[in-house]
Amino acid sequence: AIVATLEETLSGKAPSSGALPLDVTPKHDDCAPAPDAFMAASNEADTGALAGRHVVITAGPTREAIDPVRYLSNHSSGKMGFALAEAARTLGARVTLIAGPVSLPTPEGITRVDVISAMDMLAAVNAALSTCDIFIGCAAVADYRLLDVAEHKLKKVPGTTSLTLNLTENPDIIATVTASEHAPFTIGFAAETRELARHAHDKLVRKRLDLIVANDVAAPGLGFGADDNAAVLYHLAASGPDDPVMSHTLSPRPKQDLARAILDYMLP
Amino acid sequence: AIVATLEETLSGKAPSSGALPLDVTPKHDDCAPAPDAFMAASNEADTGALAGRHVVITAGPTREAIDPVRYLSNHSSGKMGFALAEAARTLGARVTLIAGPVSLPTPEGITRVDVISAMDMLAAVNAALSTCDIFIGCAAVADYRLLDVAEHKLKKVPGTTSLTLNLTENPDIIATVTASEHAPFTIGFAAETRELARHAHDKLVRKRLDLIVANDVAAPGLGFGADDNAAVLYHLAASGPDDPVMSHTLSPRPKQDLARAILDYMLP
Repeated sequence: AIVATLEETLSGKAPSSGALPLDVTPKHDDCAPAPDAFMAASNEADTGALAGRHVVITAGPTREAIDPVRYLSNHSSGKMGFALAEAARTLGARVTLIAGPVSLPTPEGITRVDVISAMDMLAAVNAALSTCDIFIGCAAVADYRLLDVAEHKLKKVPGTTSLTLNLTENPDIIATVTASEHAPFTIGFAAETRELARHAHDKLVRKRLDLIVANDVAAPGLGFGADDNAAVLYHLAASGPDDPVMSHTLSPRPKQDLARAILDYMLP
Repeated sequence: AIVATLEETLSGKAPSSGALPLDVTPKHDDCAPAPDAFMAASNEADTGALAGRHVVITAGPTREAIDPVRYLSNHSSGKMGFALAEAARTLGARVTLIAGPVSLPTPEGITRVDVISAMDMLAAVNAALSTCDIFIGCAAVADYRLLDVAEHKLKKVPGTTSLTLNLTENPDIIATVTASEHAPFTIGFAAETRELARHAHDKLVRKRLDLIVANDVAAPGLGFGADDNAAVLYHLAASGPDDPVMSHTLSPRPKQDLARAILDYMLP
């Protein structure tokens, strides 16, 4: 872990050079006492670096309906987001995991909210935002949805051999989070097939993220669907968009280990 | 089971009124002897109504790539096709199961070929066709694929809020099968959200199917993703496209039971 400025509050973060601004004081002191089952799941629940904090994580793909049977989606398996949820829980956090359609079991002690579309996911994020200390946008949210969703299954029109789908932009969930009045500490992800550093830096600044985790999803055996992943973490050395970008490379490892390494990196 | 005209050969079928033309003589007498594992999986392997026959089944959805991370697909779970594969195997058939991307285990004693896109599925079907006695097209094959698949992840263009996807027609796999020189006995599926009978009849005649299994996928608790399903079977009373359509309703039941009922219906 890098040395973080402990004294900074989440709402007024102004990190010193190279440091991430993670304050360990919970944003909300009305956190309910952890129930027994919650405590039993982790021996760091009381003493862990994220004890008493509310971490909200999105995971998996979204699905955008074309008609009742067809949809647009992407290859996100949800494994990385689920691993982050488990790692945050192990560090003592109260975790809300907002999951797109994935076939993964819910880690113990975690509140899971299942959603399908980007619009559903935004609604679930907004519902969790007021008590959120750390937001991790790990879901591969569809950039676009169908302009009009057909009520009944689309039939081929005889004699035509082509079809045009008209899409419209989905809301940018993570930018909505960072633009909110009491924005949590926000971690984003960039899954790219090329120009990883450039796209990650651009996304970090444009969406006002505190940290971005960049993956090369074209690397064989890593990323989407795989059990292992590698990442490069990027954040600004200070708070201005023109400040230098700091990077930290995490070599290939199981997603569980990568999740813990990402959280450890931002913690004091 | 309805009484079928046993004497008809598959290649020269001309069923009598109301009967399905399933001949139990294998199309190819060069079928390899069943290996031990194959035999052990079923006590009907020798004596079952499909002993010595090669049944080719497609199952699940297809996925049509938009770019390396995004795709078009549909809600088919593959459960019905896998249940049919198991039922055909239990009746003694040699089964080739050509499966789109699904998360289902391979039933014992079955040859599974995994594919992603409709073009992949067509290639796998063509490879299996020369020895195929019965073809069951249970997959929900995408009607369209992207005209151009992007080599790299598509990036949003700043300032634009819409996107158009241009699709082109996929090959019609089941129509390719029925138009082939020595067409097998062919069973198709129609998953519809309305006007089930009309769409099923149209598909039966247009694609020259021997039998069509029609499902109302809008019915709650049945169809896509569910463990239970109901169906109405349609076939022509005789071989001409203007001959009356016979129908047979199968009430809701587990997909395993429905699979067996479908096969039993066409068998003598």
